[in-house]
Amino acid sequence: MIRIVILGTGNVAKQLFDAFKVKNAIEIVQVYGRNPRTLDKFKAGIDVTSDISKIKKADIYIIAISDDAICDVSKKLNLQKGLVAHTSGSIPMTSLSKKIRRGVFYPLQTFSTNRKVYFKEIPICIEAESKEDYDLLHELASTISAQVIQIDSDQRKSLHLAAVFANNFTNHMYQQAQEICEQNRINFDILLPLIKETAAKVQDLSPLFAQTGPAKRNDLGTIQKHKALLEHENHKKIYSLLSKSIQNTYGKKL
Amino acid sequence: MIRIVILGTGNVAKQLFDAFKVKNAIEIVQVYGRNPRTLDKFKAGIDVTSDISKIKKADIYIIAISDDAICDVSKKLNLQKGLVAHTSGSIPMTSLSKKIRRGVFYPLQTFSTNRKVYFKEIPICIEAESKEDYDLLHELASTISAQVIQIDSDQRKSLHLAAVFANNFTNHMYQQAQEICEQNRINFDILLPLIKETAAKVQDLSPLFAQTGPAKRNDLGTIQKHKALLEHENHKKIYSLLSKSIQNTYGKKL
Repeated sequence: MIRIVILGTGNVAKQLFDAFKVKNAIEIVQVYGRNPRTLDKFKAGIDVTSDISKIKKADIYIIAISDDAICDVSKKLNLQKGLVAHTSGSIPMTSLSKKIRRGVFYPLQTFSTNRKVYFKEIPICIEAESKEDYDLLHELASTISAQVIQIDSDQRKSLHLAAVFANNFTNHMYQQAQEICEQNRINFDILLPLIKETAAKVQDLSPLFAQTGPAKRNDLGTIQKHKALLEHENHKKIYSLLSKSIQNTYGKKL
Repeated sequence: MIRIVILGTGNVAKQLFDAFKVKNAIEIVQVYGRNPRTLDKFKAGIDVTSDISKIKKADIYIIAISDDAICDVSKKLNLQKGLVAHTSGSIPMTSLSKKIRRGVFYPLQTFSTNRKVYFKEIPICIEAESKEDYDLLHELASTISAQVIQIDSDQRKSLHLAAVFANNFTNHMYQQAQEICEQNRINFDILLPLIKETAAKVQDLSPLFAQTGPAKRNDLGTIQKHKALLEHENHKKIYSLLSKSIQNTYGKKL
């Protein structure tokens, strides 16, 4: 049995809470949140506190709070023992207080309110300072995920950056597509099967080979027509830069 | 029974061929391809020709060839009757020869060699000059797809442009992510569940609400660190432009 305390009340904290709560190998001893009102959703049968000096003993303390606050909260933790791991993609392990056993427990996924994620398929990237702590984090992560991966702080920074392209920027492309549809009284839902297939394709095929479209074909006529059709300056800029980037990618390979 | 001729031997032609071939309501009378060698994969039990003057009689002629050649091929067709529909997203219906009955049969999906698509879920956007021809195309499309939509040539142009953002540019984001992973000796496969979830999320949620990440949060510290971490000038440019575009999107709404 691994005894854990979750520090944080946001999306990541809540989804981890829900995932661990149903695991027999895990006992959630307590949930900490600075603001007592945000603790309501954790109360059923679990001890909660908004006083950091009253945090209970546990094997692992999971800090799932905003990046800016991680260092500060780790310093305020007054622990005799126990391993402290944060869940951030971009904060180094060494940002945690030196006085404690440190680790990282980074689930690589996009979390939104009201959208349940299934941890089984989510890679959990872990890091620790000792073999024992690494094994402990591995044991914890394995209770919810089938993909537990050792990633050091430098790699994790780059992975997080790659995830910004794969997730944040991709979603922004969807949003640009939606704007163009709306400007032309087209239902955005028509694009949903295409969006699904675009993501499904790279599950098997490298994105380099999956690429299609006018920029890939260097079809200058269509590119010109598209630019003329775009009404917003912002859409035009993005269209130009990304088309050029695709043209350069495939031009180099000719 | 609708009798069709398919003109073209590329991905779209082959996938339409495979989908129609198994439908009882459809008879594929012939496949035309300029280059006899590309016709091999259509031969089993179906008449093929590379001589445009020898095209057989049919109810519908589907032109699934590159955009540049559509107008020319439609002019060379010497038909007594029958409806001619091209499958392009960006070519107006009126680019087809005036001497024939004209239409458009545009399946909104990304087609790659060796990757079978399932037409049932693919929106087919149709257009015709008369009610009768529209109904005929609708009947044809309905044999393979559950989503047949009337879209005129102007809307189709915009839809195709929106699809460039939702598919081509999205795939390019995946590729940038892969490059960043490779530069840092990280297996790109770790990002695949995130890519899948990003696409799954907007099936229910508007992209405007699904957005997450440092630019959405206006987290200038992380944005600065990310820019410093990017090695390639091209990645930097794309990161800056898209982050700014996301910041502007959400800044406006504050």
